[in-house]
Amino acid sequence: MAEQISETLGSREVVQVGIVVRDVEKTARAFADLFGVEAPQWRMTGPQEETHIRYRGQPTSARAKLAFFRYGPVAIELIEPVGGPSTWQEFLDTKGEGVHHIAFMIQDMDAQVAMLERKGMPAVQRGDYKGGCYSYIDSAPQLGVILELLEHFT
Amino acid sequence: MAEQISETLGSREVVQVGIVVRDVEKTARAFADLFGVEAPQWRMTGPQEETHIRYRGQPTSARAKLAFFRYGPVAIELIEPVGGPSTWQEFLDTKGEGVHHIAFMIQDMDAQVAMLERKGMPAVQRGDYKGGCYSYIDSAPQLGVILELLEHFT
Repeated sequence: MAEQISETLGSREVVQVGIVVRDVEKTARAFADLFGVEAPQWRMTGPQEETHIRYRGQPTSARAKLAFFRYGPVAIELIEPVGGPSTWQEFLDTKGEGVHHIAFMIQDMDAQVAMLERKGMPAVQRGDYKGGCYSYIDSAPQLGVILELLEHFT
Repeated sequence: MAEQISETLGSREVVQVGIVVRDVEKTARAFADLFGVEAPQWRMTGPQEETHIRYRGQPTSARAKLAFFRYGPVAIELIEPVGGPSTWQEFLDTKGEGVHHIAFMIQDMDAQVAMLERKGMPAVQRGDYKGGCYSYIDSAPQLGVILELLEHFT
């Protein structure tokens, strides 16, 4: 039974939809206008020394401007790639603006990443943020979409 | 005040993430394997006489095979386009597999569609389903993603 559990994702609930855009301020204003709310302030992801961001196994100087709409159980995350190579920039360059990922909150990141790799879905980017860490999974060939795993440090 | 309300979307809560795929059975099996559940059975959307589907203002023979994963408050909808022209087929042809839309549950479809059109976001496809109706909004230039409005008939 434990083995079975370890071969599945720790959650089935989407908690975030991440949209890669060219101009986070412009898109945030458009969503805010539609929702009848004030546009959220974007913030820049931390520098490499803080986030330990790695893209395709290598450290990268990539950062991103992020803006969030948190209404209801699912957050809409707007992402404007900045700087070096990243899964965000790669998506923008190859697909244009669009939904880059759906996110799930999990525990035991290393075990989940290893499980996904066994299923042929390797992590393409990993990093830390204040209070947690994330991995983007190259699951588009199997699932039609990139997964993001989020883990909050407890 | 009423005027203000009419110029905003009737909901800020994402209820569905719609992913266009080439083979709904294959993708449904991959999600099911990941979630540790049985693969859901896909179903075909109804024929034009039932759904009154219109794409870019014209009736179309397009249908789609749909499969749903309903865990937590947001459904993952897998969509395999079948037949004539549709926003689903257009997305697949131009972007490849990926997240086609995020959906919001609203009331007063005609008023909401007119409001979005005033904001430069026209409806690109509309149709009925058993118990409700939907509109896809060509909001990608402004929001980076197509919106789907869903209304349940009461």
